[in-house]
Amino acid sequence: VRPQHLACSLDDSHRYDAERPATTCPLDEAPLLVRYARMDLSRTALAARAPSMWRYREALPLDDDEEPVTLGEGGTPLLRAGRLEQQLQLEVPLFVKDESRNPTASFKSRGMSAAVTRAKKFGARELVAPSAGNAGGALAAYGARAGIAVTVFLPRDTPPILIEECRTYGARVVLVDGLIDDAGKRAAAHARETGAFNVATLREPYRIEGKKTMAYELVEALGGVPGAIIYPTGGGTGLIGMWKAFDELEGAGWIGAERPQLICVQASGCAPIVRAFEAGALAATRWENASTAAWGLRVPAAIGDRLMLRAIRDSRGTALAVDDEMMSREMAALRTSEGIDAGEEGGAALAALRVLAAGGARFAGPVVLFNTGSALKYGPRARPAA
Amino acid sequence: VRPQHLACSLDDSHRYDAERPATTCPLDEAPLLVRYARMDLSRTALAARAPSMWRYREALPLDDDEEPVTLGEGGTPLLRAGRLEQQLQLEVPLFVKDESRNPTASFKSRGMSAAVTRAKKFGARELVAPSAGNAGGALAAYGARAGIAVTVFLPRDTPPILIEECRTYGARVVLVDGLIDDAGKRAAAHARETGAFNVATLREPYRIEGKKTMAYELVEALGGVPGAIIYPTGGGTGLIGMWKAFDELEGAGWIGAERPQLICVQASGCAPIVRAFEAGALAATRWENASTAAWGLRVPAAIGDRLMLRAIRDSRGTALAVDDEMMSREMAALRTSEGIDAGEEGGAALAALRVLAAGGARFAGPVVLFNTGSALKYGPRARPAA
Repeated sequence: VRPQHLACSLDDSHRYDAERPATTCPLDEAPLLVRYARMDLSRTALAARAPSMWRYREALPLDDDEEPVTLGEGGTPLLRAGRLEQQLQLEVPLFVKDESRNPTASFKSRGMSAAVTRAKKFGARELVAPSAGNAGGALAAYGARAGIAVTVFLPRDTPPILIEECRTYGARVVLVDGLIDDAGKRAAAHARETGAFNVATLREPYRIEGKKTMAYELVEALGGVPGAIIYPTGGGTGLIGMWKAFDELEGAGWIGAERPQLICVQASGCAPIVRAFEAGALAATRWENASTAAWGLRVPAAIGDRLMLRAIRDSRGTALAVDDEMMSREMAALRTSEGIDAGEEGGAALAALRVLAAGGARFAGPVVLFNTGSALKYGPRARPAA
Repeated sequence: VRPQHLACSLDDSHRYDAERPATTCPLDEAPLLVRYARMDLSRTALAARAPSMWRYREALPLDDDEEPVTLGEGGTPLLRAGRLEQQLQLEVPLFVKDESRNPTASFKSRGMSAAVTRAKKFGARELVAPSAGNAGGALAAYGARAGIAVTVFLPRDTPPILIEECRTYGARVVLVDGLIDDAGKRAAAHARETGAFNVATLREPYRIEGKKTMAYELVEALGGVPGAIIYPTGGGTGLIGMWKAFDELEGAGWIGAERPQLICVQASGCAPIVRAFEAGALAATRWENASTAAWGLRVPAAIGDRLMLRAIRDSRGTALAVDDEMMSREMAALRTSEGIDAGEEGGAALAALRVLAAGGARFAGPVVLFNTGSALKYGPRARPAA
């Protein structure tokens, strides 16, 4: 449906035209959120549609006669993890939302499908973004799908398979000394110099619209909200997007005022949101010397920090860090116990749940772990021969 | 639904009990096919179901109260490839069935989901199979999902990422000197010695039941049969399975007597079916010194050779080989022109279509190319730095 306007995420009275390209709020540089006037989400209409995220088109920025830039993203399975549920002695069902099943094998495709759809509508000639891991490959694929040139800025030590992925979709790759925020500065400069559309996380309002569909799918599959969502968190678009989605779903009459606990999981080598949450801060500071085997979690500073912290607190959730060894062990547990193609980030989510369960945490309803990408994305790991 | 019986694929009068474990026909060693008494495939019931292949449970070997061993396989997108359609000057729509979107990132998961579901029902304690590429990882994942031990026999030169994939799902990997048929002999010997269930291609009747769902999905998405199916062919389970499916769909009243042309694509370094087709033979002979970068096509001898040749001829289809350089170029074309995560096998299918289109081939309806797996599966390729 056509958006009504864009609103600043920190002050809803800062409103902007949604039918023009936008970045962040010019008044306070906060991310902008898309607002819709009405949302006719009929479950009957949904049932007849192909299982991509665009089946929720009444909740997405798409004109009635417009075709999205799509590779069939979304519609990922919600898999019961019965063995782990028993092992952890949970009193509620445990599910894994398997986002590795998206195009380019990660959850990044949802956001890029929405962002590239809008950029194409606005006449973009080039797309640019920095990436810590999977976003670059997703942008490269959707740029190819749309017929729009792509430039990706990646940290120089990004795994070769991710660099190759971008290139094989025809994208130009620029390797940068430093981390994703350093790459982000280069991407922003490139956008200013060339007029390329910058689709960096939360620097434009539409990636969040794609990511929010994860919550729509959860509510549709479970018939209501889960008790808790355990979410491996880098830039946080998914967390913020889902929090937005629950409000929209309440507005559409699908759910009431109930909300899941949002549990933010970071790596102990890069945990700026956890540190800020524990300090009771409203914003996070940059994490120096960030390092973790979960490439997607190596985000030392995120523009969405305030929104993440607000969503975690509003949901009576929590934030915790797990170390690389725990991630690796729990990634293996998801694979050997449930047959799920978990990567390090999925392992991090299970590690966090194990910590919480051991500490006696109780959940009001089903627990949903997010596996945000396939282990194939990072290439072979060094491991002893069997 | 519960199968009625198993029938020999060469002589339908050889019939066997479907409620016991089965291998090939004891009279002539031909593959067995699953037959059903009735198939109530209501489109209304389908619409309400989650988008895995098990939504066709009335056409699959599953008791009414039985739960399949599933990771949400199937329900893969059928993507329009408009730029390639124009470039090739096709007069019909071109689609890519993107099987890279399955669990373990290849079409093998469909067959393994069905085979492991049956093996579990029959009380299997161990599962074993040889693999040329993706089948091993799929079996390892479904074995883990079912809680059944898995042993995979792989050629020693299999790409490391595929070997690692099996191991990370907890499977035991045995590396074998030779190719998949050599590995197949070792797997069969292991099954005889230990009582493990051998789920090698067409050595048991159920992988084909999973693979046939690709045709169900095509007919549902297109509202009828396509004009041609261009299929990269190793062991051939998918080709044979789809051919069986069209008969079932006619029986269920979804389609009439019309059938798509089946176009079998092999690598010029391993093309036993193409050679037999061109010679007018009813069966194929082993291809010596098989070699191709499309690991999944490196199948020098297939037990389903007669069935494949029959299906290709009955469909007024054809068989052709393409070389590795063509595959690689067309894999890149699918990626850069359409944003699809094509592997070498998908590239082979497009290469074959380009040969046919250049030769003036006409098609009676939409053309469907199969992309059978993700490029991520074989790990980084040697490629000049950009």
